[in-house]
Amino acid sequence: MTQKKTWTLTDVDRDAYVSSCNLGPADVDRDLVPFSIRKRTLRGGVRDGVDVVEIDNGALKLAVVPTRGMGIHRASCGDVQLGWQSPVHGPVHPRYVPQDEASGIGWLSGFDEFLVRCGLEYCGAPEWNDAGKLIHPLHGRIANLPAHYVEVSVDPATRELEVVGIVDEARMFSNKLRLKSTLRATLGSPSFTVTDEITNLSSAPGELELLYHINQGAPLAVPGSRFAAAVQTLVPKDAAAARDIPTWSKYPPAAHAPEMVHFFELLAGDDGWTKTMLAAPGDKQGLAVSFDRRQFPLFTLWKNPLPAADGYVTGLEPCINLPHVKSFEKSQGRVAVLQPGETRRFDIRIEALTTPDAVAKSQAEIDALQKRATPTIHQEPQRGWSPM
Amino acid sequence: MTQKKTWTLTDVDRDAYVSSCNLGPADVDRDLVPFSIRKRTLRGGVRDGVDVVEIDNGALKLAVVPTRGMGIHRASCGDVQLGWQSPVHGPVHPRYVPQDEASGIGWLSGFDEFLVRCGLEYCGAPEWNDAGKLIHPLHGRIANLPAHYVEVSVDPATRELEVVGIVDEARMFSNKLRLKSTLRATLGSPSFTVTDEITNLSSAPGELELLYHINQGAPLAVPGSRFAAAVQTLVPKDAAAARDIPTWSKYPPAAHAPEMVHFFELLAGDDGWTKTMLAAPGDKQGLAVSFDRRQFPLFTLWKNPLPAADGYVTGLEPCINLPHVKSFEKSQGRVAVLQPGETRRFDIRIEALTTPDAVAKSQAEIDALQKRATPTIHQEPQRGWSPM
Amino acid sequence: MTQKKTWTLTDVDRDAYVSSCNLGPADVDRDLVPFSIRKRTLRGGVRDGVDVVEIDNGALKLAVVPTRGMGIHRASCGDVQLGWQSPVHGPVHPRYVPQDEASGIGWLSGFDEFLVRCGLEYCGAPEWNDAGKLIHPLHGRIANLPAHYVEVSVDPATRELEVVGIVDEARMFSNKLRLKSTLRATLGSPSFTVTDEITNLSSAPGELELLYHINQGAPLAVPGSRFAAAVQTLVPKDAAAARDIPTWSKYPPAAHAPEMVHFFELLAGDDGWTKTMLAAPGDKQGLAVSFDRRQFPLFTLWKNPLPAADGYVTGLEPCINLPHVKSFEKSQGRVAVLQPGETRRFDIRIEALTTPDAVAKSQAEIDALQKRATPTIHQEPQRGWSPM
Repeated sequence: MTQKKTWTLTDVDRDAYVSSCNLGPADVDRDLVPFSIRKRTLRGGVRDGVDVVEIDNGALKLAVVPTRGMGIHRASCGDVQLGWQSPVHGPVHPRYVPQDEASGIGWLSGFDEFLVRCGLEYCGAPEWNDAGKLIHPLHGRIANLPAHYVEVSVDPATRELEVVGIVDEARMFSNKLRLKSTLRATLGSPSFTVTDEITNLSSAPGELELLYHINQGAPLAVPGSRFAAAVQTLVPKDAAAARDIPTWSKYPPAAHAPEMVHFFELLAGDDGWTKTMLAAPGDKQGLAVSFDRRQFPLFTLWKNPLPAADGYVTGLEPCINLPHVKSFEKSQGRVAVLQPGETRRFDIRIEALTTPDAVAKSQAEIDALQKRATPTIHQEPQRGWSPM
Repeated sequence: MTQKKTWTLTDVDRDAYVSSCNLGPADVDRDLVPFSIRKRTLRGGVRDGVDVVEIDNGALKLAVVPTRGMGIHRASCGDVQLGWQSPVHGPVHPRYVPQDEASGIGWLSGFDEFLVRCGLEYCGAPEWNDAGKLIHPLHGRIANLPAHYVEVSVDPATRELEVVGIVDEARMFSNKLRLKSTLRATLGSPSFTVTDEITNLSSAPGELELLYHINQGAPLAVPGSRFAAAVQTLVPKDAAAARDIPTWSKYPPAAHAPEMVHFFELLAGDDGWTKTMLAAPGDKQGLAVSFDRRQFPLFTLWKNPLPAADGYVTGLEPCINLPHVKSFEKSQGRVAVLQPGETRRFDIRIEALTTPDAVAKSQAEIDALQKRATPTIHQEPQRGWSPM
Repeated sequence: MTQKKTWTLTDVDRDAYVSSCNLGPADVDRDLVPFSIRKRTLRGGVRDGVDVVEIDNGALKLAVVPTRGMGIHRASCGDVQLGWQSPVHGPVHPRYVPQDEASGIGWLSGFDEFLVRCGLEYCGAPEWNDAGKLIHPLHGRIANLPAHYVEVSVDPATRELEVVGIVDEARMFSNKLRLKSTLRATLGSPSFTVTDEITNLSSAPGELELLYHINQGAPLAVPGSRFAAAVQTLVPKDAAAARDIPTWSKYPPAAHAPEMVHFFELLAGDDGWTKTMLAAPGDKQGLAVSFDRRQFPLFTLWKNPLPAADGYVTGLEPCINLPHVKSFEKSQGRVAVLQPGETRRFDIRIEALTTPDAVAKSQAEIDALQKRATPTIHQEPQRGWSPM
C-alpha cells in the first residue's frame, strides 16, 4: 500500500511556497478514484492575490482560502451548492476589508464565504469603550489573516484528503493564539470535517471567543426552507427574534425586515455530538452541520431573509460564546481563557444532503436526539442570553 | 469590413484574467492607423500590483487604472500633458491609501490622478457623527476599489477604441451600487469620452453622490492660466473663495494660501451639453471638459495654487452634489436616490487643446453658450450652497 | 581597476523594476572575495509580496526590506544572530499592519525587525487630540511605506557593497519628507553603516521626529546580558524604569513585568561619535551600535524582558526626540523643523561582536569615552524628560 503523501504548499519559516499545483491519483496511487487538489492564486477585482486550495474528492468540491484564515469560500456536491450569493465578489483579499473602519462593521466587506471563522481574541458585535474608542470590530481578525503554513496530503489507506493550515493571531503585548485547521474529506463522500486546534503561544493566559459562521443561501435557504435541530433550550436574541418564535424553524418570504437571531443549547448523543440541518422546500435537499456539543456549548441560528439581491442567507453557527459585545460575554463567563501552551480542539462535520433520503435520514437522527428531552422554547429574550 | 473585436481582460465571475497584452492594428485590421492597447501590472513603490490599461489612439495616450475604480492616471496629446505632479508617486495601490485614518483625509495618500471619481455612497468633506465617529471619509470609496470586469475593444467601422470596467461599491447591509465605465477614443482624435452607468443592484433604494475630480497642473495650469465656462450662476464656497471673486477665472502666482473653490450652474446648448476650458497663458494650449448639463446640474472649480513642490493644481469637477459633508447635501436635496435596479448615466468629454486655434474654437463655443444668459456672480457664499 | 558597478532594482519614475537578481564577484571583479547581493519577493503568510535585498559580504548577512521603508529584518555574522523572535512571522507586508486601528498601536502587527525606523512626521507613543481623534498612531508611517527607488552597487576599489533606497512620506496638504537610505558594508567586515538623508521636499517647513529602533533578542539579549554606554546623563522614563535604576545596565530574568525605558545623553569622542554595546553573558559576543552624537542628541534603551514566547527583547535606539507623544516633544523643543529643501543626515554603525576580544575592545572604547565626564544618573523621572 502506498504511504500517505504530503505536499507543503506554504512554509514561511522555511521560505517554501508553491505557486500552483494540480494533484491527482497519478501523484499518489493510480488505483484511487479520480480526485484533484489544486492550488492557485486568484487574480482581478477584490480577489487579486488570494490563494485558494481547491479540492474535489470525487463527490464534493471545496475551495479553501489560506489567505483568509483557512475559510471555505464555496462548496458543491452534485447540484447542491453550498454557500451564498453575497453582494461582494469574493473571496476578498484582506487588503480590501477595512476592519478598522469607524463603523465597526468593515469586516462585512469580506463577508461572502460559506464558512468563516469569527474570533479569536473576540467575535460578535463591535464594541466601543466608554471613551468612544472602537476596541473590538465586528467578528475579530482571524478571517482576514493569512496562513503561514499550508500543506495538503492524501492517504491511500484511509482514502482521506487533507488540507492543513496554520494561522497566527498574535502580536507583541497582545493575545498570541495559533489556529491549526485540518480539513478532511474521504474520497467519494458528500461530507467533510473541520478539525481546529487553537493553541495559546504566549506564556500568559489568552482569551478566546469563537463562532463558526456557516452561511447558506439559495437553493437550500429560500422561502419555505426549514431548519431542524435537537433543542434543549431556545432563546430569541431580541424583539425581532421573539416575534419569530412561532415560526423559528421556518424561512419566510424575502422582505426588508430585521434579521432574526436565535440562540440554542442543543441535545447531544452518547458520543457527545449533535446535528443540525437546513432543508430545502419539500425536504428535497439539504445541508447538515454536526459538531461536538462538549466543545461547542452553544449554537446560533441567523435568519436574514433579505431579497436575493441583498443576500437571502442563513447562518448555522456552532459557537463557544454568543455574538454579543465581548464585555457582555465576559460578564457571563463565556469568554474562554487558554493557559500558556494550552490547546483546545473543535470538530465540525458538514454534509451535503443531495437526496430526500439523505434529508430524511438526518431528520431521523435529529428526532432521535430530540427524544432525550423536551425543548424549552423561550418566548422572550432572557437575562444572561442578551444584554437587558 | 472587419467586425468589432473585444478582449476580456478581467472577469472574476468567469475566473478570467489577462496579465498583459499589447494590441495593435495587426490584431484587428491592418488598414487602421497605428494604435495600441496595452495591459500590464505596475511594480515597485506604492504602485506595486496596480493594473493599468494604456491606450494610444494615434493622437492621445491614456492610462486607465482598473485597480483604482477605472480612474485615469495620466494622459497626453503631443506635448500637452494632462494630469499633475502630486507629492505621491502613483498610481497608488488602494492598500497604501489609509481611507480609515482618523483624520478623515487618508484618501489624499492616493490622490495623484488626472481623473478620479468621488463617490458613490458619498463624496465631499469628511463627516463625523455627533458621537465623534467618522461616518464619511473624504471623497468616498469608489476610487480605491478594483474593477472585477475589464474589457477592451476596437471597432474598425467607427474607428473607436473602448475600455469598459465594472466596479461594485457594495456590501451586506449597505449601499450596493455598480459603476460601469466606458471610455471611448476615436483613432487619431485628441478627445475621448467617459460614459458611466451607475446601477443600484439592491432591492432597496440606494443613495448616490458623485463628483469627477479632473485635475490639471503645469503646463496648462500655471500662474497666468485662465478658466472659462458659460456661467449661469457662480457662488464662492467660503471667505477665501469670496476674496477670489474678482479674479475667479485667473490663476494666481503660487503661494501658501487657502484653496479657492467656486460652485457653478452652467449654461447648456440645445443639446443639453456645456463646455468648460482651462487655457495656458497666452491661450496657446488647453484642456476642455464638456458634459451633459442635464446629468450634472453642478460644477465645482478648485483652484489650489500651491508652490509646485506642494502641488499647483486645479480641478474641473462636474458633479451632482457639492463637495460638502453629506448631511448638508442631503438637507439641500442634492443626494440622489436610485430606485432598485435604476441606472443613471453620466457623460463627459475631455479634449486636449494642442494649438491656439483649438483654444480659440473652444472659447467661441463657450462664448456662444454665454450669450444665452447674463451670469449671476455672487460676491459672497450663499445659503444653500454652503453651510452657514 | 574595475569601476563601481550599480544596478537599479526599482525606479518607478522610469518604470523600472527587477523582480529578482543574484549578483556576485563574477558580475563585478572575479578577484573579489565571495559575496552576494540577492533580490527577491517573499511569498506566503503576512510576508506575501514583500521585496527583500539580501546581502552577504563574506562575513555578515543582512536582509534589507524595501517594502518596509528600508528596514533591516535580520542579520547574522557567523553564529551571532542579530534581530529577535517576534510573535509575528515577518517581514510583514504593510497591508497587514493596521496602522489606523483605534488602539493606536496597530503598528505592532508589523514589529519584528532588527532595525526599524520610527518617524518621520512623528514617532513615539500614540496621541489623541482633545476630541478623542487619533492623530499620531504609534511610531509613525515610514516603516510601512515602500521604497520607490532601490539600487545596489559594488565598488571594487573601496570593496564596499551598497544598498540605496528612497522612500517618500508625503501627501498633499501634509508633510513631504524623503528618506534616502544608504547601507554600506565592506567585504569581509562584521560591521555595516546606515547613512540616512532626510529631505524636506515641500516649499513649506516640515516636522521631523526620528528614532532608530534597533532590536535584539537571544542569544545576545538574555538574562545576564548587559548594556554599556558612555553616559553623560541617564533618566528613567517612569516609575518602572526608576525601580530599575540600580540595575539599569543588566538584563533580568524573564517576567511578565512592565517594560523599562531609560533615556540618555551620551559622551562622544573628538570625532563626535559615541558607542553603545549589548554584551551576551560572559561578554562572549555582542552587538555595538555607534552613531554621531551631534546628529543624535538622545538615546533610548528599551528593556522588555518578557518570557521568550512573548518576546524577550531590548532596543538600542539612537534618536532625535524621545518616544513620548508628539505634543510633549514639541513643548520640549525636540521636534525638528526642516526648512524647504533642507536635508539632515544621520549616520549609524552597527557591528557584530563575534568574540570576547571584540567585546573587550568595544568596552575599552566606551570606557575611554566615559573618562570624559562623571555620569549623572537620575533616580527618578525628570521634568522635561517625561510628562509629569
